[in-house]
Amino acid sequence: MAYNLLNGKKGIIFGALNDRSIAWKTAERAYEEGAEFVLTNTPMALRMGDTHLLAEKCKTIVIAADATNVEDLENLFKVTLEHFGGKIDFILHSIGMSPNVRKKIPYDGLNYEYYLKTMDISAISFHKVIQTAKKLDALNEWGSIVALSYIAAQRTLFEYNDMADAKAALESIARSFGYIYGREKKIRINTISQSPTLTTAGSGVKGIDGLMDFTERMSPLGNATAEECADYCITLFSDLTKKVTMQNLFNDGGFSSMGMSYRAMHMYNKSLECKDCHTNPLNPDEDLPNDKL
Amino acid sequence: MAYNLLNGKKGIIFGALNDRSIAWKTAERAYEEGAEFVLTNTPMALRMGDTHLLAEKCKTIVIAADATNVEDLENLFKVTLEHFGGKIDFILHSIGMSPNVRKKIPYDGLNYEYYLKTMDISAISFHKVIQTAKKLDALNEWGSIVALSYIAAQRTLFEYNDMADAKAALESIARSFGYIYGREKKIRINTISQSPTLTTAGSGVKGIDGLMDFTERMSPLGNATAEECADYCITLFSDLTKKVTMQNLFNDGGFSSMGMSYRAMHMYNKSLECKDCHTNPLNPDEDLPNDKL
Amino acid sequence: MAYNLLNGKKGIIFGALNDRSIAWKTAERAYEEGAEFVLTNTPMALRMGDTHLLAEKCKTIVIAADATNVEDLENLFKVTLEHFGGKIDFILHSIGMSPNVRKKIPYDGLNYEYYLKTMDISAISFHKVIQTAKKLDALNEWGSIVALSYIAAQRTLFEYNDMADAKAALESIARSFGYIYGREKKIRINTISQSPTLTTAGSGVKGIDGLMDFTERMSPLGNATAEECADYCITLFSDLTKKVTMQNLFNDGGFSSMGMSYRAMHMYNKSLECKDCHTNPLNPDEDLPNDKL
Amino acid sequence: MAYNLLNGKKGIIFGALNDRSIAWKTAERAYEEGAEFVLTNTPMALRMGDTHLLAEKCKTIVIAADATNVEDLENLFKVTLEHFGGKIDFILHSIGMSPNVRKKIPYDGLNYEYYLKTMDISAISFHKVIQTAKKLDALNEWGSIVALSYIAAQRTLFEYNDMADAKAALESIARSFGYIYGREKKIRINTISQSPTLTTAGSGVKGIDGLMDFTERMSPLGNATAEECADYCITLFSDLTKKVTMQNLFNDGGFSSMGMSYRAMHMYNKSLECKDCHTNPLNPDEDLPNDKL
Repeated sequence: MAYNLLNGKKGIIFGALNDRSIAWKTAERAYEEGAEFVLTNTPMALRMGDTHLLAEKCKTIVIAADATNVEDLENLFKVTLEHFGGKIDFILHSIGMSPNVRKKIPYDGLNYEYYLKTMDISAISFHKVIQTAKKLDALNEWGSIVALSYIAAQRTLFEYNDMADAKAALESIARSFGYIYGREKKIRINTISQSPTLTTAGSGVKGIDGLMDFTERMSPLGNATAEECADYCITLFSDLTKKVTMQNLFNDGGFSSMGMSYRAMHMYNKSLECKDCHTNPLNPDEDLPNDKL
Repeated sequence: MAYNLLNGKKGIIFGALNDRSIAWKTAERAYEEGAEFVLTNTPMALRMGDTHLLAEKCKTIVIAADATNVEDLENLFKVTLEHFGGKIDFILHSIGMSPNVRKKIPYDGLNYEYYLKTMDISAISFHKVIQTAKKLDALNEWGSIVALSYIAAQRTLFEYNDMADAKAALESIARSFGYIYGREKKIRINTISQSPTLTTAGSGVKGIDGLMDFTERMSPLGNATAEECADYCITLFSDLTKKVTMQNLFNDGGFSSMGMSYRAMHMYNKSLECKDCHTNPLNPDEDLPNDKL
Repeated sequence: MAYNLLNGKKGIIFGALNDRSIAWKTAERAYEEGAEFVLTNTPMALRMGDTHLLAEKCKTIVIAADATNVEDLENLFKVTLEHFGGKIDFILHSIGMSPNVRKKIPYDGLNYEYYLKTMDISAISFHKVIQTAKKLDALNEWGSIVALSYIAAQRTLFEYNDMADAKAALESIARSFGYIYGREKKIRINTISQSPTLTTAGSGVKGIDGLMDFTERMSPLGNATAEECADYCITLFSDLTKKVTMQNLFNDGGFSSMGMSYRAMHMYNKSLECKDCHTNPLNPDEDLPNDKL
Repeated sequence: MAYNLLNGKKGIIFGALNDRSIAWKTAERAYEEGAEFVLTNTPMALRMGDTHLLAEKCKTIVIAADATNVEDLENLFKVTLEHFGGKIDFILHSIGMSPNVRKKIPYDGLNYEYYLKTMDISAISFHKVIQTAKKLDALNEWGSIVALSYIAAQRTLFEYNDMADAKAALESIARSFGYIYGREKKIRINTISQSPTLTTAGSGVKGIDGLMDFTERMSPLGNATAEECADYCITLFSDLTKKVTMQNLFNDGGFSSMGMSYRAMHMYNKSLECKDCHTNPLNPDEDLPNDKL
């Protein structure tokens, strides 16, 4: 179903790598809803991914830009404004990467150069995008900016590592800049905190399958899919959410408000009661490394 | 602008008293978006208010029901299901009243019979509406239920009195029932925490003018209006927010995420520095009653 | 270890039923720390429990009072003030009961008379205690009031039922009254949100064993015990936390800030991978009732 | 009053510059409570400040260390462990600085090299301290680590600038590392979110006087002082809070839970109603720069 919710609106979408990407799904939905937009990603991601296929499908262009590089961003915005012959209305920031996670460096042995990279790529890039947009006065009044976040910003998940701190900073940037860009240009800035999603980025997170099963069984509506996240983004880009700003909005089937579901407890209890599935039923943690107890 | 976002959807809207009501605005917008719905309010509110005018405008019917009375609610749902010849898709709960506030009884001298009434009208009625809906299996899968809340549920505002506790309970009911109705019927339940709004209900709150000026100057996008709240409700009733549940969603121009804005501080500081506007500039609290210091 | 942290302080402790009660442990610790206090509970609880043994141990008296009954509370405070020949410094509210939970009435079939009772006993009683204390001017300046809460106030746990809404209201009362009693008499009011604890009250909650295993494995420091909760109460009654007020403070080994621990995931995954412990390994939910899916 | 709460405990205190510092007050109180500790600060701060006077008073030593420098931290911990002939029990991190704030660079024109410095000094240094401590196994089991934070981590305050994002990251680090250090060594890690305080660091924040007046009038117990923060730290270092971890704890007289107090509204309203203190009473924002509206 399409509703023309974004008719006449123009935007920039960061981070559509392939058809599993949330940014990809959002681009498809934005296109259906009547928006025009430019796609962007790093040169490397553009080589590895399928962004050009998406661009064809959505009859638009791709502009390479490293979102941690202010010059790249300035070029991106300038070319975009020229392309549209005017200002834009929305931005989606779907960018995150941790070299520490990639290299399996644990949180208590972080490489600090990598940590700064995690911060730069996954959080500060959001500031750079917004600062560049504001400097070039690239957004129409009542424009909308959205970044994708994760509940690790509030609650610790094993092995999500320094990405948790980056997501916390990302959500803070949404608030800090939401105040300034709001008061001056009526721009709203929010983050969506999405269920774990099996994107190319998400699938890099160790143990995500068990986690996704758990969150699925914990959430009364089940995990939110990338498509459902795209739908939610559309509402935030539309004119129907004009006064929603500086918020972190959970799109997670209810997970964030759950303490324990009957269904997840049921599964957990089976393991508790199972005599066969633990080497030593009296100590089911026996096969855990000491530093994980 | 209308988008047919609610085409084919049916619902019940509680609490549209007159054209300042948020429920009234939501009904108008839902109608524009293609929804059909039944209007309901207490018999007394129906006598005092203009609900029948709204019903004419939206080509629908009004069914009297006291939302604290389970029999009334059962009748309401039965008549509604008959009226539509089938199940409904959304419910708006916009109901709140505190006899303690009305009778200017302070929070440290509460009448507990009234307190229970505040709870029953402003919070438990929400549970009754949902329990009745579920019992009669009145909602289609992926239906959406919304209640209106206020930031007093999280932060104390002088003279909001026992309504704060009721709003906290209301938001808890949204979570508690969101889990159960979600897992069984895929129904989502959320609250919108709206800016202070000059409805007939809101205007009963003492000192709301100064407060609204403050929140206006604190919020980068200004206070959200009743119309803007209606727009937000539409997105929550639509199919674009299917996995958003058990959430309290602020529609407040950013107020909830503000600590202090330059503009509100500026106004406050003028009073601090003003020699003329305090009887005793060295003690600007001088004219405050002792129990307010 | 004792530190004389409460030397010279006087108080009232509600809810010490037997030696598993958190209130019991708090009384013992308060006694060790030099406090004097009065114990109170309902007449029924006094008959069923061992409160008199505690009173002996702590060389104090027991005064029967139903905390939902304002007259009882007035008598309690009057007798207490006489007993001490002066005002008191701290109050512990450890009271909660849900007739709906007791009678195994599910949340989607609540008896509303019982619901009001849950609210009255588990939340409004806290307001009544404070309102009575304030009316009788029973607390010295910089006194401290604490009530025990649970994370169900923020996150839904299956079968915690209407107690979740009561705990949300309880925490709201702490804020609402914390403002008023703070500004007028410098009294601070907080809630402690404690780990699930195997008290007589806690053990009534269905499935608490599996849940406690889960929270134990989720919390990096493990569940907090009743003794540890007592220690935390002591700090809040002491002069070292004078400006901490209107807060809900988690004493839970870190559970509230956890999304998923390695150790809990490990246990959960075993069940996921176990072929023997599910009748139908392809559908481990098979033996779940339909309304729990 | 002293209670011997920290008898036999050993620690490291970062950031005691002069007698207005919260770290200074905490050191004094820790000393009174029987703790031994090492003081540390950057070489520059040691030259500018009075840390050696504090060391004399507390009969201890000062070890220079830049907390952003891992080698310095390794040396600090090694010398400390030697000094005490054993492990330590507590750490206070009271470190924060933003070159952007210092140079009056606004949030929408950030220098990103400075931004990384803000992050490194004010947030990542906390990680470095903990990682170094863990690597050297410098803490006894059930040790306690505290960092000082500010409500800007949750709510935007004009001109607090990139420090808000750093505080958000700092609080996230407390959670992320609280999980790991908790499960492995039973170490707890928390942040205290303190009232605005007129320390040397705090007094650099523009407009802090008006803000402190506002928070004073908003908070039912008034702003918390540095001394009161020190007291609160003592409780967190003591054995009475063993299961409190991964929390951000407000020590703010209730400010964080206030929406609006009668007293602050009263002051604000005077400015609203004052005809003399605005050049143009019909537009009291007239003298505001356009970009602050």
